[in-house]
Amino acid sequence: MKYCFGVDIGGTTVKMGLFSTEGELYEKWEIKTHTENEGKQVLPDIAASVRAKMEEKGISAEETAGVGVGVPAPVSEGIVKNSANIGWGYKNVKKEMEELLPGIRAEIGNDANVAALGEMWLGAGKGCSNMIMVTLGTGVGGGVICQGHVIAGANGAGGEIGHICVNYSETEKCGCGKTGCLEQYASATGIARLAKLRLAKLHGKTLLEGKNLSAKSVFDAVKKDDRVAIEIAEEFGAYLGHALANMAVIVDPEMIVIGGGVSNAGPALLPFIEKPFQEKAFFANKDTKIVLATLGNDAGICGAARLII
Amino acid sequence: MKYCFGVDIGGTTVKMGLFSTEGELYEKWEIKTHTENEGKQVLPDIAASVRAKMEEKGISAEETAGVGVGVPAPVSEGIVKNSANIGWGYKNVKKEMEELLPGIRAEIGNDANVAALGEMWLGAGKGCSNMIMVTLGTGVGGGVICQGHVIAGANGAGGEIGHICVNYSETEKCGCGKTGCLEQYASATGIARLAKLRLAKLHGKTLLEGKNLSAKSVFDAVKKDDRVAIEIAEEFGAYLGHALANMAVIVDPEMIVIGGGVSNAGPALLPFIEKPFQEKAFFANKDTKIVLATLGNDAGICGAARLII
Ligand SMILES: [Zn+2]
Ligand SMILES: [Zn+2]
Repeated sequence: MKYCFGVDIGGTTVKMGLFSTEGELYEKWEIKTHTENEGKQVLPDIAASVRAKMEEKGISAEETAGVGVGVPAPVSEGIVKNSANIGWGYKNVKKEMEELLPGIRAEIGNDANVAALGEMWLGAGKGCSNMIMVTLGTGVGGGVICQGHVIAGANGAGGEIGHICVNYSETEKCGCGKTGCLEQYASATGIARLAKLRLAKLHGKTLLEGKNLSAKSVFDAVKKDDRVAIEIAEEFGAYLGHALANMAVIVDPEMIVIGGGVSNAGPALLPFIEKPFQEKAFFANKDTKIVLATLGNDAGICGAARLII
Repeated sequence: MKYCFGVDIGGTTVKMGLFSTEGELYEKWEIKTHTENEGKQVLPDIAASVRAKMEEKGISAEETAGVGVGVPAPVSEGIVKNSANIGWGYKNVKKEMEELLPGIRAEIGNDANVAALGEMWLGAGKGCSNMIMVTLGTGVGGGVICQGHVIAGANGAGGEIGHICVNYSETEKCGCGKTGCLEQYASATGIARLAKLRLAKLHGKTLLEGKNLSAKSVFDAVKKDDRVAIEIAEEFGAYLGHALANMAVIVDPEMIVIGGGVSNAGPALLPFIEKPFQEKAFFANKDTKIVLATLGNDAGICGAARLII
């Protein structure tokens, strides 16, 4: 058994965790992300925090298997080309991290891919080695794991699930510049958008009338059997379920894990996704389980630590 | 350097090749596939042919790295659950093959996945480790390679590219029982079907009038600038190009290789696929190259041999 660190860099905070290589989480904490000056303090701050924790606990470099880092950007061979959230341009994160922490190995991954690894290691996908994770947050991110390894892709842009085209007749643009991306219907923002569009042409009563339209208000109303909210959830679920069926036919996963803020709606969410998934699933993929993520915000630090193993 | 054998089992013939582990193809030959009696002679016939070739060439078991076998069925850990083409029900192909050839390792893979490996090893994808291969034949098959490994999936059903849904308003059924599968538009049969549908409602002149409608006659007419044939090719290309863009966003390949009978149309095929691909490609995937396969019918034996390495 050795120690390892999992680091999840976000735009405002860096989440950090101290783990055993067997998967025990001893302690977690946060530091601020200093994005100013092109984020040049971010890695030194992380290194200082790792060193401080090692001193506090009396852990030597020899007892440390490494530091895994999740970054909100495509990562290829430890290198980030651009991460607007942190202020970074081109950065060899692996090399800089290892220079800042002599004798300690660093491994770098994309944050969404790393979260998928976390759920596989310690969360909903425990024991599973073929898995798709979909993170329904402000955007839609994801990670695809085959035979225990994340599909990172030729440019570190594997698993960009949010930008699968699910509607060829859409006219509004996605943040990526394309039209009809899954993110436009299945993110928190996307669900709120579907709700707005539906309420604009609605004649009838709904609990959503006059409410702040969000993924939360929609699923709260679903739980109260509100017909309009159910229709919105069905529309969201059809886009997501059909996209998942198309992904399954390519990667043939054992399990699909749904995480991110939208998944806080809980088990009520699942039937809306499962029904259209089953409708469009290839026969070999019919047994794929669709489940909720269990690690919440810790998926990132867990998966980052898992990069070391 | 050692020797290895690549075996590609089809419904009527078994293709076989003798390779070096460095990728030299010394000799190739075929034997008949005896599908009668639930195909129980298929593996013994292959083993006898391998042994005969070893004797003929004076190759010992010690000099043989192994025998790789491609099977027209999903394969999981060397086991086939059902392969109608060969007459097999449940069969532990790896185990039986190794029992038939004592001292020689056997590795088993799905034929479409194995063809992808072949193109990566010795064909269009040489030197590439992230690749999608699409085989446009009677059906549409495929193989997805990430970091040099085929995505076999939890049930051995990875890369079933032909059954991605590309048209949610289709009413005709695909062979798999679903509707709107890529195979219904991009296989040889699918292209002939698109041609028939278009000619049925056509008012105007076309070289296809009165012709036997096939992928070949359509692309022959395309090369003579026939407007109707070009429209059919555009329809085929839109379905395929959009599906490839959706696959690329998941696996982020360096290259997409197009093989199978339809690809005999040659380079004229590519612009019809590239244009819609570029229209719908995520920005990180814009540089993905789309190329024609180069190994033809040898892809199967090459990839089967590659299973050993
Ligand atoms: Zn998009
Ligand atoms: Zn189908």
